[in-house]
Amino acid sequence: MAKRIKVTIWNENRHEQTSEKVRSVYPKGIHGALADGLGIKENLEIVTATLDEPEHGLTEERLADTDVLLWWGHTAHGDVSDEVVERVYQRVLHGMGLIVLHSGHFSKIFKKLMGTSCDLKWREIGEKERLWVISPGHPIVEGIGECFELPHEEMYGEHFDIPQPDETVLVSWFAGGEVFRSGCTFHRGQGKIFYFRPGHETYPTYYNEQVLTVIRNAVSWAAPTGREYPKYGNAQPLEQVPVYE
Amino acid sequence: MAKRIKVTIWNENRHEQTSEKVRSVYPKGIHGALADGLGIKENLEIVTATLDEPEHGLTEERLADTDVLLWWGHTAHGDVSDEVVERVYQRVLHGMGLIVLHSGHFSKIFKKLMGTSCDLKWREIGEKERLWVISPGHPIVEGIGECFELPHEEMYGEHFDIPQPDETVLVSWFAGGEVFRSGCTFHRGQGKIFYFRPGHETYPTYYNEQVLTVIRNAVSWAAPTGREYPKYGNAQPLEQVPVYE
Amino acid sequence: MAKRIKVTIWNENRHEQTSEKVRSVYPKGIHGALADGLGIKENLEIVTATLDEPEHGLTEERLADTDVLLWWGHTAHGDVSDEVVERVYQRVLHGMGLIVLHSGHFSKIFKKLMGTSCDLKWREIGEKERLWVISPGHPIVEGIGECFELPHEEMYGEHFDIPQPDETVLVSWFAGGEVFRSGCTFHRGQGKIFYFRPGHETYPTYYNEQVLTVIRNAVSWAAPTGREYPKYGNAQPLEQVPVYE
Amino acid sequence: MAKRIKVTIWNENRHEQTSEKVRSVYPKGIHGALADGLGIKENLEIVTATLDEPEHGLTEERLADTDVLLWWGHTAHGDVSDEVVERVYQRVLHGMGLIVLHSGHFSKIFKKLMGTSCDLKWREIGEKERLWVISPGHPIVEGIGECFELPHEEMYGEHFDIPQPDETVLVSWFAGGEVFRSGCTFHRGQGKIFYFRPGHETYPTYYNEQVLTVIRNAVSWAAPTGREYPKYGNAQPLEQVPVYE
Repeated sequence: MAKRIKVTIWNENRHEQTSEKVRSVYPKGIHGALADGLGIKENLEIVTATLDEPEHGLTEERLADTDVLLWWGHTAHGDVSDEVVERVYQRVLHGMGLIVLHSGHFSKIFKKLMGTSCDLKWREIGEKERLWVISPGHPIVEGIGECFELPHEEMYGEHFDIPQPDETVLVSWFAGGEVFRSGCTFHRGQGKIFYFRPGHETYPTYYNEQVLTVIRNAVSWAAPTGREYPKYGNAQPLEQVPVYE
Repeated sequence: MAKRIKVTIWNENRHEQTSEKVRSVYPKGIHGALADGLGIKENLEIVTATLDEPEHGLTEERLADTDVLLWWGHTAHGDVSDEVVERVYQRVLHGMGLIVLHSGHFSKIFKKLMGTSCDLKWREIGEKERLWVISPGHPIVEGIGECFELPHEEMYGEHFDIPQPDETVLVSWFAGGEVFRSGCTFHRGQGKIFYFRPGHETYPTYYNEQVLTVIRNAVSWAAPTGREYPKYGNAQPLEQVPVYE
Repeated sequence: MAKRIKVTIWNENRHEQTSEKVRSVYPKGIHGALADGLGIKENLEIVTATLDEPEHGLTEERLADTDVLLWWGHTAHGDVSDEVVERVYQRVLHGMGLIVLHSGHFSKIFKKLMGTSCDLKWREIGEKERLWVISPGHPIVEGIGECFELPHEEMYGEHFDIPQPDETVLVSWFAGGEVFRSGCTFHRGQGKIFYFRPGHETYPTYYNEQVLTVIRNAVSWAAPTGREYPKYGNAQPLEQVPVYE
Repeated sequence: MAKRIKVTIWNENRHEQTSEKVRSVYPKGIHGALADGLGIKENLEIVTATLDEPEHGLTEERLADTDVLLWWGHTAHGDVSDEVVERVYQRVLHGMGLIVLHSGHFSKIFKKLMGTSCDLKWREIGEKERLWVISPGHPIVEGIGECFELPHEEMYGEHFDIPQPDETVLVSWFAGGEVFRSGCTFHRGQGKIFYFRPGHETYPTYYNEQVLTVIRNAVSWAAPTGREYPKYGNAQPLEQVPVYE
C-alpha cells in the first residue's frame, strides 16, 4: 500500500455560482470533480475548501493537516486574504506540496512563490490543445503517452513570465499557433510546486483521464518528506577557528 | 570600446553613520568604495544612492536611467518603502540587472524576487573564507583563478533558502566548517540577478581586487538587452482555427 | 508495502583482492557491504556483480532485470569492455536508474553519460569531510540531518568537470580547504542518475548509516517509471497541413 | 568596437555536391551562405571548413585559432573521423564555443557532448514553423521579436533526447501538430554550446534575417572567456590538517 497523502483541494467556486454553463459542466464544482477523480486512489485522503468558507477553508488546522494543496482560482484572486496567502506560503516553505491549476497562475500565492508577474497570452475560442511530454522519465508523466489532446481549451501562450522551471515536463501546442510550458516543477524552501495548465471552467477537462493521471502523479511527487525545518540564524563554529582581533 | 552601462550603486549607508569602525574601513561609505573600485572601467557610468535620500535616491527617473543596480543593505531593510521596492521590482522584470551584495540577501527586493525566506546561517568571528569557482566558463569569473581567499569575513552557511539558482558560479568554504553558494545567477522577467555573498561592513572586502573583478564582470553580464517588454493578455489566433460552438 | 525495486550492485572488486587493508575493512567486498546495508529495506531485491565475472556480471539478462544499478570502480576502469558500457548506457536511456559512487566518477559509463572529462582534484590523507544538505526537500536526503560528517575520507575538490547537475543535493566541506558537489542528480533519456561522492576503499564509509540512507533513498528516487521508449524517427502529421510544392 | 571573435563555419558540404536543388538554394554552400550572413558583423573573423578537406579542415592549428565553431552535418556523420571529433571535443572542454545547427543534432560531436541519443521525430513536407522566445532576457534573442516564422521547414518534434538544457531559449510550433525545443544552451567543461534547430538544406533558412541574428548573437554568447584550464589531479592541502594514521 502506497504512502497515505492528505490532499486539500481548494477552489474559488465562484463561476459555479454565477454561470449555468459552468454549473452544467461541474455540477459538484471543480473541487468536487477533482475530489471524485483523484479519490479513486486509495492512499489519498481528500478534503475540499472554497473561497467563501471562513478563512477560505484554509485554517491553520486544515493546512497543518495537509500534505498537498491544489489551487484553482480565476475571477476572485483579489478576494483571497493576504493573511491566508501568507499562511499557505509558510506551509509551502515548510514542506507542503502545492499544485497550481490553470488560471491559478495569477493567484497571489503563485506570484508570491515565483517572484515574477506570471503573466501570459490567452484566448478563449475553444481551440485544440495537445500536450507533449518533454521529460519522459519524470514520475509526473508516468502512465501518459508521448502526448495527449484536449479537443477544446482556453489557449495560454508564451511568453509565460515565470522563473526557469526546475523541470519542464510538458509543453503545449495550440491550434491557433502558440506554444506553452504546461507542466512545470519548482522548489521553494522544502516545498515542491507543480504548475499544470489545463482546466478552463467551461470545458470538461477535469474529467479527462490523462489530466487526472497527471494530477494524481503530481500529488505523489509533491508530498513532503517529513524533515525538520532547517536551523537558520546564528551558528557556533563546527571547527576550531583562530581568534581574530 | 565596450558597451556603455549605467550603474547605480545603492547602499543603506547606516553603519557608516553609527560605527566608527565601519567608517574607518569605508570612509567614503560602502557605496563610495564600490564606485571607486568599479569606476576604473571606462564603460561604466556610475552614480550612487542611499537610503536616507528622498525616495531612497531611487526615483522613477533614476531607475529609468539605470542598466544595473547594486544593492547593499543590512540593518534597515524594514525602512525601505514598499513603493520603492515595487518600483525596483518592475524595473527588474522589464530588464534592469540587479546585483545583490552580502546582507542584501534579506532585503525586501531580494525576497520578493526569490519567493522564499532567503534565510541562512551566520557567524561573525572574522574567520577565513575561500571562494571556489564552480562554473569556470562563466563570464562572471573571467580573470579569477580557481579560488580566492578573504582572510576575514562573516560566515554565511547552508542551508541558504533560495530557489535553485539558474547557475551556481561560486561556492565558499569557511574555516568554521560550513559551505555556501556564494555566487548565484537568477532570471526574473527580462532581468538578470546576481547574488554575491562577501562584504561584511567591518572588513575591507570591497577593496579586494578579486571581489571587484567579480562585481565588474557581473555588471557586464547583467546589463539589459534592450528588448521590448513582451505582449501579454488577450491574443488573436495566428492560424485559422475551426469555429467551436 | 513500497514498490519492489530490483537492484544490481556492481563493484570492480580489485582492491579487495590485492590490498589486505581494504580486505580488512570490507571482508565481503564493497559490494557485499552495500548489499548488507541496503538489504534491510524489504522492498529491495539485491544482486551483486563484479568485473571479473563473465561479461562483468552485466549480461543482457541481468541488466534487463535491473531497475537500479550501483557502480563502484577505481583502478580498472580501462578493463571494462566497451560492449558492456554500451549495454549499460542503452539501459539508462531506456529508464534504468544508475547510482555512481566515489571513484566511479572516472568510469567509462559516467563519462559517456556526462559528455565531459569528469576530472577533479583529489588528496588521500584521511581528512574530515562534512556533507551539507543543499536541497532540503529532496527525497534523496529524507531522514538526513542538515549535515553529516565522515571522520576520514579521501578529498575530492572543485572544479569537478560535470555538466551543471539538474539538482545539487549535497555539498562537501573538507578540512584541507576544498568544497565539492557531492550529491548530484542528472537525467539522460528516461534514466535517472545520482552521483554520490563518499566511499574510499580504505575507510568504513559504506557502513555509515547516513551514507546508507542516502543510497537507499537514491535507489527509490532512481527507480524507473515503466513507460515505453519514445517513438523517434519519421512521423505523420497530426494536423492537416497545406501541400507544399 | 566589440571584442574580435574568430569563427570557423564547418559544413559537411555533401548535399551541395549531389543535389541540384540544394545547389540552387545555396550556390556557395551552406557554409558560404552563413559566412556571408554573419560576415556583416565587423568583429567576426570568419573562415570555413568542410568534410572533404584534409582532416575535414579542422586541423590542430585551425581549431587552436577558433573561438567559436559552427557545425552543419546531415548525411555523412559517419564519415567524420573519431580523431577529429576528439580534437573538437577537447577544444570545447577547454573553452571553444560550439553552435550545432539543425541536423547536426545527430553528429558524433553533439552526441558525445550530450551523453544521450539526441534522437527526435522528423517530417519533411515543407510545413510552417514558428519559433517562440521563452527566455526574453537572453542575449541570444536580442533583436528578435516575441516569435518569428519560417514558411517552410523540415519538422523536428519532441521528444528530443537531450539532457535538460541549461537554458531553453526558443520553442517551435509546427503546423503538423508538434513542438520542439529549438534553441538550447549547454555548458561542457569551459565551453558553451548552443543548439539551434532550423536549417534544412532545401530551404533558404540561412538567408532569413532573424535566423542570422540568432546565430550572430549565439557567436557572441559562446565566445570563450580566455581563462586557464582548471588544475585537476592530486592537490596539496590549503589548510593544516591533523595527521591521520
